[in-house]
Amino acid sequence: MSYIKEINSVNNPLVRQTLVLMEKSRERKKKGLFIIEGIKELELAIKGGYALKTLFYYPELISYDTLLEYLKGVEDPPELVSISKGVFQKIAYRDSTGGIIAIAKTKEHALDHLKISSKNPLILVAEAPEKPGNIGALLRTSDAAGLDAVIITNAKSDLYNPNIIRSSVGCLFTTNIGMGTTEEVIRYLKNNNITINCAALTASKEYTSVDFTQPTAIVVGTEATGLSEEWLQESDQNIIIPMQGEIDSMNVSVSAAILIFEAIRQRKP
Amino acid sequence: MSYIKEINSVNNPLVRQTLVLMEKSRERKKKGLFIIEGIKELELAIKGGYALKTLFYYPELISYDTLLEYLKGVEDPPELVSISKGVFQKIAYRDSTGGIIAIAKTKEHALDHLKISSKNPLILVAEAPEKPGNIGALLRTSDAAGLDAVIITNAKSDLYNPNIIRSSVGCLFTTNIGMGTTEEVIRYLKNNNITINCAALTASKEYTSVDFTQPTAIVVGTEATGLSEEWLQESDQNIIIPMQGEIDSMNVSVSAAILIFEAIRQRKP
Repeated sequence: MSYIKEINSVNNPLVRQTLVLMEKSRERKKKGLFIIEGIKELELAIKGGYALKTLFYYPELISYDTLLEYLKGVEDPPELVSISKGVFQKIAYRDSTGGIIAIAKTKEHALDHLKISSKNPLILVAEAPEKPGNIGALLRTSDAAGLDAVIITNAKSDLYNPNIIRSSVGCLFTTNIGMGTTEEVIRYLKNNNITINCAALTASKEYTSVDFTQPTAIVVGTEATGLSEEWLQESDQNIIIPMQGEIDSMNVSVSAAILIFEAIRQRKP
Repeated sequence: MSYIKEINSVNNPLVRQTLVLMEKSRERKKKGLFIIEGIKELELAIKGGYALKTLFYYPELISYDTLLEYLKGVEDPPELVSISKGVFQKIAYRDSTGGIIAIAKTKEHALDHLKISSKNPLILVAEAPEKPGNIGALLRTSDAAGLDAVIITNAKSDLYNPNIIRSSVGCLFTTNIGMGTTEEVIRYLKNNNITINCAALTASKEYTSVDFTQPTAIVVGTEATGLSEEWLQESDQNIIIPMQGEIDSMNVSVSAAILIFEAIRQRKP
């Protein structure tokens, strides 16, 4: 890496490609590429085994040597591109990127790629979460809980949406994530003998009286409409968090966290 | 209420006052007034005993008769003001207000106004929460948990910030809320023999091994800096949610929910 490419023009094709990848889900899918911003996020992406293609850095915020430190141990190092202030300001969405923006390759999240090593897995399934911020919060909770996998069904936004990456604080990259249609996910759980516990309002048992110590999937729907009929029909047990107040809903990431950490509590040795 | 005032001009002084009350915290404090948008929010404000001063309604979205239904039982009915489409569009922040915007009187939240009827209270204390959205989420969780009170110390935004009202889905109005400096709140809790459980990273016991069945305050700090030294010094017990992942933080409203619902679980008869 003795020769470092430099880009000083915001009209450079690579800069334009970066902007398109930030904005367009379709482009991300077509090219199998997405954008990582920030040092923490980059570290987690490397840890999660993501392949980096291009790494832009703004030398006033991060030195070449520091950059090489971060890339130590990366098998297939990215092309390094030093960018000017103008280019950095054009492509940096956040102030706190630490001078780093990368183009990385997306991963395959189809269920047949999902590797679960635990014999007694605890999995969160989220059906069609609407807001990127909610998906990010679910991923942060799943990371903290050390879940074996997070499965998203009928996703409304692609996983590499910059708002999901941002709100997950990068732990998207180290979480074991599967995606599929509701039908596929139900089949996957049944084939793997994982109990389906649907957060629902009807025919539900209080979540604290449900046994989560066996292979368990906790399934949550959207705040607005809850889980689809498909899930409720295939559910092994509907579960509910009893609510005492005036409004009968909590944020989906809050409800999911309460359910997941009750399962964790029950599973403590 | 046979004579209904009508306002058709966006330059009407009452319309201008409404806009200022929405935008300026200082004006809300000075006048002791704030703005309520939406039917659900209005219902909860009435239920919470808030005094309404003026009620704007846009007749194409809500009829006079429906309005009177909502106001049934209100001791001191507000002045009703029919507004034109132009005025409605000017003052409605959301699309889903249902045609209702009210000017209401703020309440006093100093600790000596806080009424706790339970002999074994469960209280959430949040130190200096930064984002209105976080305060709203904390209030929703507190509502669902049926907490005896929520106390906010060193608040960064005034409670009647429209974003807090919105993100709390109005349950701000039916929650028992106290406010004070950290010092005042600590004194209040000690005087009332309420155990102080601080969410902290040091000298902390796993939250599931802590007894929350006695009079309990769960105290949470900001995501960025945690609780202040003052709290940690006066804490009866520091508590922690063990985290397994790559990033060592959860959203403050998520952590608070996990702690609160563990307390609720322990308190079940």
